[in-house]
Amino acid sequence: MSIEYKLVSRQNHVQDSIIRIGENIFGGENFVIIAGPCAVESEAQINETAEFLSTAGIRMMRGGAFKPRTSPYSFQGLGLKGLQLLAGAGERYGLSIVTEAMDIVAIEQVAEYADMIQIGSRNMQNFPLLKAAGKINRPVLLKRGLSATIDELLLAAEYIFDAGNEQVILCERGVRGFNDHTRNMLDISAIPILQKLSHLPVIADPSHASGRSDLVVPLSRAAVAIGAHGLMIEVHPNPQAALSDSAQSLDFSEFQNLIKEIEPFLPTSGSSHD
Amino acid sequence: MSIEYKLVSRQNHVQDSIIRIGENIFGGENFVIIAGPCAVESEAQINETAEFLSTAGIRMMRGGAFKPRTSPYSFQGLGLKGLQLLAGAGERYGLSIVTEAMDIVAIEQVAEYADMIQIGSRNMQNFPLLKAAGKINRPVLLKRGLSATIDELLLAAEYIFDAGNEQVILCERGVRGFNDHTRNMLDISAIPILQKLSHLPVIADPSHASGRSDLVVPLSRAAVAIGAHGLMIEVHPNPQAALSDSAQSLDFSEFQNLIKEIEPFLPTSGSSHD
Amino acid sequence: MSIEYKLVSRQNHVQDSIIRIGENIFGGENFVIIAGPCAVESEAQINETAEFLSTAGIRMMRGGAFKPRTSPYSFQGLGLKGLQLLAGAGERYGLSIVTEAMDIVAIEQVAEYADMIQIGSRNMQNFPLLKAAGKINRPVLLKRGLSATIDELLLAAEYIFDAGNEQVILCERGVRGFNDHTRNMLDISAIPILQKLSHLPVIADPSHASGRSDLVVPLSRAAVAIGAHGLMIEVHPNPQAALSDSAQSLDFSEFQNLIKEIEPFLPTSGSSHD
Amino acid sequence: MSIEYKLVSRQNHVQDSIIRIGENIFGGENFVIIAGPCAVESEAQINETAEFLSTAGIRMMRGGAFKPRTSPYSFQGLGLKGLQLLAGAGERYGLSIVTEAMDIVAIEQVAEYADMIQIGSRNMQNFPLLKAAGKINRPVLLKRGLSATIDELLLAAEYIFDAGNEQVILCERGVRGFNDHTRNMLDISAIPILQKLSHLPVIADPSHASGRSDLVVPLSRAAVAIGAHGLMIEVHPNPQAALSDSAQSLDFSEFQNLIKEIEPFLPTSGSSHD
Repeated sequence: MSIEYKLVSRQNHVQDSIIRIGENIFGGENFVIIAGPCAVESEAQINETAEFLSTAGIRMMRGGAFKPRTSPYSFQGLGLKGLQLLAGAGERYGLSIVTEAMDIVAIEQVAEYADMIQIGSRNMQNFPLLKAAGKINRPVLLKRGLSATIDELLLAAEYIFDAGNEQVILCERGVRGFNDHTRNMLDISAIPILQKLSHLPVIADPSHASGRSDLVVPLSRAAVAIGAHGLMIEVHPNPQAALSDSAQSLDFSEFQNLIKEIEPFLPTSGSSHD
Repeated sequence: MSIEYKLVSRQNHVQDSIIRIGENIFGGENFVIIAGPCAVESEAQINETAEFLSTAGIRMMRGGAFKPRTSPYSFQGLGLKGLQLLAGAGERYGLSIVTEAMDIVAIEQVAEYADMIQIGSRNMQNFPLLKAAGKINRPVLLKRGLSATIDELLLAAEYIFDAGNEQVILCERGVRGFNDHTRNMLDISAIPILQKLSHLPVIADPSHASGRSDLVVPLSRAAVAIGAHGLMIEVHPNPQAALSDSAQSLDFSEFQNLIKEIEPFLPTSGSSHD
Repeated sequence: MSIEYKLVSRQNHVQDSIIRIGENIFGGENFVIIAGPCAVESEAQINETAEFLSTAGIRMMRGGAFKPRTSPYSFQGLGLKGLQLLAGAGERYGLSIVTEAMDIVAIEQVAEYADMIQIGSRNMQNFPLLKAAGKINRPVLLKRGLSATIDELLLAAEYIFDAGNEQVILCERGVRGFNDHTRNMLDISAIPILQKLSHLPVIADPSHASGRSDLVVPLSRAAVAIGAHGLMIEVHPNPQAALSDSAQSLDFSEFQNLIKEIEPFLPTSGSSHD
Repeated sequence: MSIEYKLVSRQNHVQDSIIRIGENIFGGENFVIIAGPCAVESEAQINETAEFLSTAGIRMMRGGAFKPRTSPYSFQGLGLKGLQLLAGAGERYGLSIVTEAMDIVAIEQVAEYADMIQIGSRNMQNFPLLKAAGKINRPVLLKRGLSATIDELLLAAEYIFDAGNEQVILCERGVRGFNDHTRNMLDISAIPILQKLSHLPVIADPSHASGRSDLVVPLSRAAVAIGAHGLMIEVHPNPQAALSDSAQSLDFSEFQNLIKEIEPFLPTSGSSHD
């Protein structure tokens, strides 16, 4: 095939890219956990979560203000108000913020409030948005599309690089499978393959990959053991009451257990990740 | 599942929706062929194609001005210049025009030049774009995403309706399969299923579904026989020289053969489509 | 790839293979409908069906005696008794018989009673069974596996040829998809692709492809229009009472309608299949 | 759905099933590595491998005597001679043996030589073979089919139980995906899901899942971390010269590295598998 990525290729940049956001370091032997609710729902909810995450040692919070929802009748997020609540909670508790931008206009606004901008699965091949993300002075978290190949993901990252932004983190979040017990199918082998082909950090999102809170811990262990540079985990003070993704969100106690469970598999625990 | 479509549902509107664009009528017992090149490449190319289509009895032309391309290094389309060439050729030869809009800013510009706006597969769940398309006074051709379920496609159409635009035509254009001999896998059964669930017209795009010009005629026959309301076909004066999709484009002689081949299967030929 | 088919290749045998079974001719410009119940359930059921099919002009009946069922607790078929009932009904009403053999021992017994032996989807890569089918003096109906590629299907046919049997008919019966409204996804483009690559007859099974009786007619129209050499249709005197596949079986009246519906699309109706 | 598994269900048997084969214990907190070549090729090859594995602490060897190959022109295995070589090498070096049976006749012969019988992916729904495996006095290693759902895999195991054999080990070996860089896609989440639904041991086969020797170590780490009860690894004295699966086989040095790499993640190393 004549279609090839250049700027994101490991051949172009042999060393791992290192991306620093606040106290978080992505890439190399570093490991980052991003956590937070699917959506910002209220000031109380986001502050309670931020306070908890802060005490749990987390330094980056996720939370949706603009939500891509399959149905127009589902909760669409709080928009600007959500961004403001998110930024306020982040500042109060010392957390960097990542949140999704869905279009080329909103991305400017999102960039004012967020430390990293997420491009979601459904927008992985939204090329105007990729180009806009390439002109924003913020790192970008690029999630793999539901049926995107590995080459297509890397070419999407190449769009961002080509437009001028070299701060891109890739995220494997499950692909469309025929699995009858999960929402999607985590393509765990994508993590080492992406790391071989590219110099970019690669994290995993076991919450969206499985859609089941009881699978988040085992999938996190696997992702850590295979060498992911981080995890993105949905956490909510009261998952049953969440306005979206309630089945896959951990409560605070489950999240504390996750941190304990993955500890033996972390890079600093002694295994050598090749 | 609590997620449901209402406005696009057949339960909400028992009769087929009929959408008129110039001399073309979509829906009911009508059948429309949209044809044209993947991309507008030059004034000569688009005029030559428009003249040919006009003499072949076609009344709607496709052609990309803003092109979604997997790689940033592939031809991205002529942009505004492409829109102008397209509209000029359409006016000269009596053809309505359909072309893709990829973002919420460009859609306004596209609407000035085009008679119908296409939302491509990669943008089927670009919700801001769907909402913007709901506010534009133009019919929308909504293509199914590469791994979108039928319910997801109908909910995407529901977004457009919910935002105020009830002129939506659906397009089955192949899904990601494991077929080793085609670009995608035409999900032919989606056509009657969509027609049962919804009142919207449904057309097929055998060019993108197969990625092979030699399969366009047989797939078109199948789509007509199953009751599609129309076809979208890639035609180019010189496919070998096309800047994109050269393997799947028909030349003029092949297109004339296509019209002859599908003739026996058209609704007016006597078969009763239930 | 170094793995290639030779004996079944169109390059090895430019003309269509013609396979005659009783009054049925598969291949070339001929068209055959095979019909009958999923499983032989009783003498009354199979005789009633055979009589009906005979009066409807059908000359080949299907019916399972040995049934591949996902659960060990589902009806497994009548076995030898089923074979005998099937052969008796076929003889009484002038119908050739096709039924499935599931292992290398039973295939000998099935060959005593049946005019054609079916190898089902789940056994498409049961290589000992393919080799045994190659040594049996009966035509073989080889159904595509649920996620088999086109090359894998042709190599399975090659096993039968290589073992000595050149009477093989291929059957597209739907693949595993992510379609939310059907049992499987009919890969309609497989039909012309197989006909280009190979000289073997190719038929379609819309009953298993869709799992829905209301889709059998539209899918049959599509299969005929694209140039399939035949159809295999599930018919039952009383689908609601069927012991298996009740949702996808046609009753007698629906089957008569199917024959009427596909008539305009048959080769003899004037369309030229390339 | 009314189709349900009973005997293999965790509801029927709350504790993990423990299966002992020679010195190997499958299930519970135990962990077993099965290793060996794709196919038995010669006495020298299998003895050299057995000796190496024995010194590496391995106590179960795999090796194919009857090989399921996509093409009839590929190496089909040494048959009975292969079984004898395998059993001889196992006896000489203190290794239990697992090898594949492909049909209901050969399974008797395989059972004479092997300590565990493998039913391969292509035969996961070969129901006569499953029933025959239910009557053999040997544990069965049941590999998941290429596009089998989790329920289908458990129902296949139910067939073996229902026929009288309660010694079944499940194996996740990758499913058909659209991954452009691997042979299959390891469905890592299947491992904990199967362990929740069933009391049977579950192992992983990263060699077939990836088809790439350079991914075997990272996938093995992930499988161990997620709680698999074991691994099946292809090892060959000289992978480049292997008659099959050469791209995915480890050489002896790579295999020693694998043991070292997974060591920190093993159950006995201190992590608590829930």
